[in-house]
Amino acid sequence: MKMKKIGTPFFVCNPKSYLYGAESLALAKAADKFAVEYGVEIFFTAPFADLANIKANTENIIVTAQHMDSLVPGRGMGHVLPESLRNAGAEAVFLNHAEHSLTLTDLVKTIKRAKELGIITIVCADCLDEALAIAKLAPDILLCEPTDLIGTGQTSSFDYIIETTTRIKEIDDSILVMQASGISTGEDVYNTIIHGADGTGATSGIIKAADQVKSLEEMIKAVVRAREELSVK
Amino acid sequence: MKMKKIGTPFFVCNPKSYLYGAESLALAKAADKFAVEYGVEIFFTAPFADLANIKANTENIIVTAQHMDSLVPGRGMGHVLPESLRNAGAEAVFLNHAEHSLTLTDLVKTIKRAKELGIITIVCADCLDEALAIAKLAPDILLCEPTDLIGTGQTSSFDYIIETTTRIKEIDDSILVMQASGISTGEDVYNTIIHGADGTGATSGIIKAADQVKSLEEMIKAVVRAREELSVK
Amino acid sequence: MKMKKIGTPFFVCNPKSYLYGAESLALAKAADKFAVEYGVEIFFTAPFADLANIKANTENIIVTAQHMDSLVPGRGMGHVLPESLRNAGAEAVFLNHAEHSLTLTDLVKTIKRAKELGIITIVCADCLDEALAIAKLAPDILLCEPTDLIGTGQTSSFDYIIETTTRIKEIDDSILVMQASGISTGEDVYNTIIHGADGTGATSGIIKAADQVKSLEEMIKAVVRAREELSVK
Amino acid sequence: MKMKKIGTPFFVCNPKSYLYGAESLALAKAADKFAVEYGVEIFFTAPFADLANIKANTENIIVTAQHMDSLVPGRGMGHVLPESLRNAGAEAVFLNHAEHSLTLTDLVKTIKRAKELGIITIVCADCLDEALAIAKLAPDILLCEPTDLIGTGQTSSFDYIIETTTRIKEIDDSILVMQASGISTGEDVYNTIIHGADGTGATSGIIKAADQVKSLEEMIKAVVRAREELSVK
Repeated sequence: MKMKKIGTPFFVCNPKSYLYGAESLALAKAADKFAVEYGVEIFFTAPFADLANIKANTENIIVTAQHMDSLVPGRGMGHVLPESLRNAGAEAVFLNHAEHSLTLTDLVKTIKRAKELGIITIVCADCLDEALAIAKLAPDILLCEPTDLIGTGQTSSFDYIIETTTRIKEIDDSILVMQASGISTGEDVYNTIIHGADGTGATSGIIKAADQVKSLEEMIKAVVRAREELSVK
Repeated sequence: MKMKKIGTPFFVCNPKSYLYGAESLALAKAADKFAVEYGVEIFFTAPFADLANIKANTENIIVTAQHMDSLVPGRGMGHVLPESLRNAGAEAVFLNHAEHSLTLTDLVKTIKRAKELGIITIVCADCLDEALAIAKLAPDILLCEPTDLIGTGQTSSFDYIIETTTRIKEIDDSILVMQASGISTGEDVYNTIIHGADGTGATSGIIKAADQVKSLEEMIKAVVRAREELSVK
Repeated sequence: MKMKKIGTPFFVCNPKSYLYGAESLALAKAADKFAVEYGVEIFFTAPFADLANIKANTENIIVTAQHMDSLVPGRGMGHVLPESLRNAGAEAVFLNHAEHSLTLTDLVKTIKRAKELGIITIVCADCLDEALAIAKLAPDILLCEPTDLIGTGQTSSFDYIIETTTRIKEIDDSILVMQASGISTGEDVYNTIIHGADGTGATSGIIKAADQVKSLEEMIKAVVRAREELSVK
Repeated sequence: MKMKKIGTPFFVCNPKSYLYGAESLALAKAADKFAVEYGVEIFFTAPFADLANIKANTENIIVTAQHMDSLVPGRGMGHVLPESLRNAGAEAVFLNHAEHSLTLTDLVKTIKRAKELGIITIVCADCLDEALAIAKLAPDILLCEPTDLIGTGQTSSFDYIIETTTRIKEIDDSILVMQASGISTGEDVYNTIIHGADGTGATSGIIKAADQVKSLEEMIKAVVRAREELSVK
């Protein structure tokens, strides 16, 4: 199935399981407005049961599931059926997030299923070695979120962004590299993009802000600022 | 939260991952009509992403999720958030199905979360020992689907229905006992109810029928026939 | 197969994965000496690969595995075969420890396998509800280690010991109840036994002591003191 | 730690959980004799609890565990501690076998632990894509056992051996490639080696033979025959 082309630099608004129902929808609508207003590609994640309603009430964001399984329609009680997500309007899916690790065997199968259905895959890696292995599986987006780096200074982080981005693209330069460790301000967003990431995103930086919509807008504006600066170079 | 009172004998239409989208909705609507027409309590399961749409288009069936996790709103990427199911209209959930086994620790936590949210729990057991352990956790419905019994004759099956139902109710007589091994015809439904089960249900017996709606109706009629016969006794 | 009769009050020396090889063996030999010297039943756990050597060098302790799987001899690459443990001299096994949770289905199967092979089962519960469910599975020993209680005061802990012990024995009075949350001194051991536990045990209380053997002996002496006091009553 | 150099072509005698205790030891001793007699590198797997005893009674085989976890000495109840295996004499370990799949995150960590301890890693892949991802993790041996190929004809199998071996070595030519699908005779062993595999192995082909030792010897002789033929070329 034909897959959506991804505009870069992109931004992922990922409320994880913090939001559902009306609150999730409200933030999705704000993201939808910003996507047009700022011309930025925005992925928006939500619980499985919320995806259809968000899709029905938005036009510009890429509705994104936080996981899916590899099963095909048939038996498989309680698993997350890819076709059901696609039918609900999901166009992208996170896989192998640190909070939902997959066996390598399942990861391979699930990426295949996503390709069959035209679902964009955002595959997560815990460390550089894991990222390089995943790069051989040709995900659309590879998210590097090194547990190792948590708590370290900013400078090594920029080196890390540059090194991982470079090494992943050496393996497969069609992969978009997302870097999103500890993004909590527009400045973090700007710095990440300016150092070469194709995209970034945030969870608690938005959710725990006094004003979620304003926090999201600040980050989207920072994407624009980095994009403009990069285009001048 | 206040939980729906369950009418007995009940029937569970459980298409697992065989159906999603339009096909799932069509069968749900038929079930919804039969629930009123025959006055039978019908649970209807669907993939997570389909629950909200089915709820929005039906009035009488109990919209049922096929699994949920124990997390609370917050972190928890890609897991099935109970609040998101409840908000989408799910009023019941299957737990510990043989195709989605839970650790005992998670099962205890998830049953607690369901009680907090007023979600009916249908907890599955693989054998009598497992059923007796689960009975101590006070699920609303306990489904006995013994892997051991597959392929054995009907008579021992009736003995099994009577024994398990009796022994579960000795532990906690407020638990409703569902028996549903290999139900493929109205006759199977009738026999299961008449031997003491509080409810039964089917997957492939309905899904693989030439006419799914007709097959479902035949089973619902069998519930009514058993119910009437039992009320005379 | 005939199972060893368990003397009470018993003590479990559980070095988890802190010790292996020579260090594990040295502590096991000390435990072996104390078992005779003080006439106390001592369970001693070790990594799978150490069990045979510990058995070959001790006479009085109950060599105990920290987990096993439910498979039977045959296929099953990399799983912990019960027969291999029994053959190596293990006479007891921990199951469902919080660091190695089992699905309820596997727990039921693994307890059955242990009974077939005459292996004593020490099954762990995270909370009272889980303990009551496990009690229906007739483990030899039920360990109540409530995550909820961590960090709470001593007094509620004694109430908890009394309540859980009572309620488990109401379900099946042949089950021995082990209580072992945060045991770090002989005094903790004494208090736990005196409040009705059939046994107790420790990990870090022993491992992190300046002198492991001395710490173990202090705890064994406390078992004796509690035992004598209880026998007078 | 320094790792053993692996002689090629090698053979893996992998009785999985079919053998333990005396039976496992008897076959290990036969393998030990053949290793010298035929000058072939033989890996021999056994349950964790049997490894030390096999090591103590053999001199030439590479004693091999069927799995290990990534933990370090410390907490970690019931997991397979790498140090305990190394201390027991294991010099190699299988990882990610289809019967014991690992999350990619754990696979990365466990390969690192093995390298730290000088343990040879034999990492299994279910399909070519999985093999190519694993190749980026620099295992010592990569075992290609495609579930897809089961039941297909021999010819495509030779093509598959050649293609996978070539493509893995393009990524990292220091990786030894093992091919072992459905090896049941000496002829199968010969054909696998002659088509370019660095090693092969068997489970049921040996275990289910009327005479296990004779079956093993036939396979080892076939390794020699292929080796000699390749050396002439």
